[in-house]
Amino acid sequence: MRRIGIHSFVWTGGQTQEGLELALEKSAEHGYLCIEFAYLRPELFDLDRLARKAQSLDVQIGVTMGLPIEKDVSSEDIDCVRAGTQMLADAVRAVRDVGGDKLGGILYSAHTKYNRQPTADGWNNSVQAIAETGEIAKAAGVDLVLEVVNRFETNLLNTTAQGMKFISDTGSDHIKLHLDTFHMQIEEASPSAAIRLAADKLGYFHIGESNRGFLGDGTIVWDQIFDALIEIGYDRDVVFESFSTAIVDEGLSLACAIWRDTWTDNDQLARHAKSFIEMKWGEAERRKITNQGA
Amino acid sequence: MRRIGIHSFVWTGGQTQEGLELALEKSAEHGYLCIEFAYLRPELFDLDRLARKAQSLDVQIGVTMGLPIEKDVSSEDIDCVRAGTQMLADAVRAVRDVGGDKLGGILYSAHTKYNRQPTADGWNNSVQAIAETGEIAKAAGVDLVLEVVNRFETNLLNTTAQGMKFISDTGSDHIKLHLDTFHMQIEEASPSAAIRLAADKLGYFHIGESNRGFLGDGTIVWDQIFDALIEIGYDRDVVFESFSTAIVDEGLSLACAIWRDTWTDNDQLARHAKSFIEMKWGEAERRKITNQGA
Amino acid sequence: MRRIGIHSFVWTGGQTQEGLELALEKSAEHGYLCIEFAYLRPELFDLDRLARKAQSLDVQIGVTMGLPIEKDVSSEDIDCVRAGTQMLADAVRAVRDVGGDKLGGILYSAHTKYNRQPTADGWNNSVQAIAETGEIAKAAGVDLVLEVVNRFETNLLNTTAQGMKFISDTGSDHIKLHLDTFHMQIEEASPSAAIRLAADKLGYFHIGESNRGFLGDGTIVWDQIFDALIEIGYDRDVVFESFSTAIVDEGLSLACAIWRDTWTDNDQLARHAKSFIEMKWGEAERRKITNQGA
Amino acid sequence: MRRIGIHSFVWTGGQTQEGLELALEKSAEHGYLCIEFAYLRPELFDLDRLARKAQSLDVQIGVTMGLPIEKDVSSEDIDCVRAGTQMLADAVRAVRDVGGDKLGGILYSAHTKYNRQPTADGWNNSVQAIAETGEIAKAAGVDLVLEVVNRFETNLLNTTAQGMKFISDTGSDHIKLHLDTFHMQIEEASPSAAIRLAADKLGYFHIGESNRGFLGDGTIVWDQIFDALIEIGYDRDVVFESFSTAIVDEGLSLACAIWRDTWTDNDQLARHAKSFIEMKWGEAERRKITNQGA
Repeated sequence: MRRIGIHSFVWTGGQTQEGLELALEKSAEHGYLCIEFAYLRPELFDLDRLARKAQSLDVQIGVTMGLPIEKDVSSEDIDCVRAGTQMLADAVRAVRDVGGDKLGGILYSAHTKYNRQPTADGWNNSVQAIAETGEIAKAAGVDLVLEVVNRFETNLLNTTAQGMKFISDTGSDHIKLHLDTFHMQIEEASPSAAIRLAADKLGYFHIGESNRGFLGDGTIVWDQIFDALIEIGYDRDVVFESFSTAIVDEGLSLACAIWRDTWTDNDQLARHAKSFIEMKWGEAERRKITNQGA
Repeated sequence: MRRIGIHSFVWTGGQTQEGLELALEKSAEHGYLCIEFAYLRPELFDLDRLARKAQSLDVQIGVTMGLPIEKDVSSEDIDCVRAGTQMLADAVRAVRDVGGDKLGGILYSAHTKYNRQPTADGWNNSVQAIAETGEIAKAAGVDLVLEVVNRFETNLLNTTAQGMKFISDTGSDHIKLHLDTFHMQIEEASPSAAIRLAADKLGYFHIGESNRGFLGDGTIVWDQIFDALIEIGYDRDVVFESFSTAIVDEGLSLACAIWRDTWTDNDQLARHAKSFIEMKWGEAERRKITNQGA
Repeated sequence: MRRIGIHSFVWTGGQTQEGLELALEKSAEHGYLCIEFAYLRPELFDLDRLARKAQSLDVQIGVTMGLPIEKDVSSEDIDCVRAGTQMLADAVRAVRDVGGDKLGGILYSAHTKYNRQPTADGWNNSVQAIAETGEIAKAAGVDLVLEVVNRFETNLLNTTAQGMKFISDTGSDHIKLHLDTFHMQIEEASPSAAIRLAADKLGYFHIGESNRGFLGDGTIVWDQIFDALIEIGYDRDVVFESFSTAIVDEGLSLACAIWRDTWTDNDQLARHAKSFIEMKWGEAERRKITNQGA
Repeated sequence: MRRIGIHSFVWTGGQTQEGLELALEKSAEHGYLCIEFAYLRPELFDLDRLARKAQSLDVQIGVTMGLPIEKDVSSEDIDCVRAGTQMLADAVRAVRDVGGDKLGGILYSAHTKYNRQPTADGWNNSVQAIAETGEIAKAAGVDLVLEVVNRFETNLLNTTAQGMKFISDTGSDHIKLHLDTFHMQIEEASPSAAIRLAADKLGYFHIGESNRGFLGDGTIVWDQIFDALIEIGYDRDVVFESFSTAIVDEGLSLACAIWRDTWTDNDQLARHAKSFIEMKWGEAERRKITNQGA
């Protein structure tokens, strides 16, 4: 584990420059070393100012996003795919411009509850678009990580095995997986086996509870998750994600179906999450040593 | 536990009379004592014939459904609510006519991925509609059970606590909860505590794995579920539910976001599920005796 | 939960006055509000001085012990039983004299790996001895709690159900159970069900990992334990216990079969344990609220 | 997994030839393909007749034992070590003579609750004795597997890591480990990690519940165990072990501290255990396929 980070939606709906800067400050205040923003449209925000603020606080920026349905690169409509590919290229550049080091999320399809089955042509279109984006990202010095999410948020990559196949199909060595415990809890037969399957293709990791609230306030069996991360020698960022109706971003809140206050006090939430992750990571490291020590 | 049942979509997409009759036969063949059908539109099926077949096979019929968005009783549009209330009354009669003993599912809202927050008026409209339906069901000798489902399939009742509040608001002693392990795994802080919270208000129970495939092929910690059912003295039906793209019902498959073959051989699936439930139930009974025996 | 405490053997083998005083200081330094000592023989230690030190540090003392085989009150030999009963009476007085509030442990039998089956006469002798001790303890204002331990450390009370029967047989309302997660992990069908069975008869609680090392470094499923404690409204002391060959008490280390260094740095151990218990307790409280909150 | 077996003490205390033959018959009747006997003293039993019976029933015999304290090869007393080494050589021959294929158990020390710490000299004596026994076993065509057991039954090999070190010290490629879920639940930080650590050095596997009763009637998290066995490609015997005061062998019952009836009906126990192991194994195989299948 390189750094513990936090999703900016713990702090702000993300509609204003002030909100994003506040998120940076709160993250730093709680000792988080990286932050995750949603797609930052350059026309709406002063990216340069954000970059300087992040640098001064020593907080690394990463960006995640999902495509809108009209720019779905897994579509069979070539115009739609083209528009999505363009959006991804723009997003990579925005990440670079804000001083970010990674672009993740649902880059390979729309972020929506689909009402149709995925198709082979759509898969191929998506592979092609992501392969191209991978080249652009590599040149820009930005990591490209694909988030495997649950069935209600995409119809294309719901499992790590599907994600591995997809990456293999791109032929790229730059593209990696972005796994998330909330989604794995729904889709994987065994989340820890999924992490071991991803192994060195795991490029980014989201820690989120099964009900998207406080860590420990759901059904995820955490020790197995951390044991698996330790076992594969995961050495990249681990980012806490939680949603509540207490902080609303119209688009993301609806896409993620957030109808409840799972928390209201985000300071308490952020403080607990960091302690939780640090404690669990330490315990998993100790378990490994204990298991191997004669 | 009174009877172990199985959802008919293990056997058939449910579009034809032949499919439904096959489902009854296969269920009986595997030793299931009840079956769950989706809403049976009287104009499409010979309910009388189905009732006689079920009786001859000694398989009890139950029915579940979700409202379509244009008949959503949790809407703020009074015409929409009225249409939904009428649909529920019709559904109760169809259950009675087919010799069924219960109507369950997402009766209190549409079965859809909502794109708006729930509202207080919508809640009240739904409470009123369900209270009326409860009276009709009581008179018809049909149990009315409300399924608490995950955030992507309704925005109204995602947790048992919400369901208990809703039932209380109806003022009815006839209406009970329909809990489902697949949904609880996503929404509840502790599924076993949720079962204990429901206690004698639990009227129907779905056993489904976290990825909707084979039991044991996901993240649910089953022993705690069965311990809780034993602890509250649950004495009604336990019904196995699983979906795969191997069996497709256009409407339900899309609403439930089924994009994968979690299985292809439904005989193997049904055989395993029954053994699994019986074994787990027996183990939980034994644990209770062991725990209490000096 | 009233107070979080720690067993003195984390700090000292307990052979010297200096060791015991150091243990008090270290416990207070780490924020523990109670400490557990092994039987303090009045002829070896200055109890008065210890009492004053504990009071000045605001650390509550409790005492636990196991009977030696020659004073086993579960023996069929009446002289042996009599000697044990006398020892228990002396122990109650020592607890009172050191300002302690409870006497716990294996009071009802020897603390040993037995090489014979328990007998009905032995059970009755033990019940009688403990009933008498209960009267003395009540008069002295000292709680009497019986520790249910694993099969290798007694042959009489290995399960909570046995403990409940035993307490009932004494006819006393003063005697309660002392449960311990290490022992429950071996003997109970379900540790959480055992805690719920004990309910208001639970008078003292030991938190120890399955291998007696760091919390989290073993097989215990902690969330269920804490959920059960919250559920029964447990409002007495919770005490952390851990053994390593790093700290040796000749008698206790052998009785408990401590052959490994599960830790060497007891400051790190104690710091982690307190954080662990506080975090887990808080998470369980939150789960209860989440589960019940509509 | 090659065969599912059962320990003979489910059927008999093992004091008579008739008891042993009954055990073979009952095991075969329940479909077990191997059986585990305790050390068969050639002067007490007709090994030849037993061998023929086993062969006619197609049940493979294996033998396990623990050394008596006066023949403890981990002693510092050279005569004691010599007597133990001789006993092991005799035991290997008895296994061969009865048509058995393996000798396992606590071969490297006494099977007792020790009252002293292990010593470096004792370790070396034991390594030497086991290395010699390994040569004899190899020549006799008998597998030699060392059972790692809990702290109350030996002071030498309590963890898999210790067992791996021990095997390495013998320099033998013939000696393997014998792991047991009951013991691992007490001693290992993570039983599944322990199985993965053993990997191809795992030569024999005991399935026993945490309280030694019915499978599922304790605290072991079984899915992780079976996942690990599948992951390492374990292809040798898996043997069910359970003890109750319903079946008594004076020596073994006391060494194992069996004070309770965890069951009385051994037919029911054996039937359940076989179904349990088969079902869990199948589920773990399915999980692996599901996890890896895109």
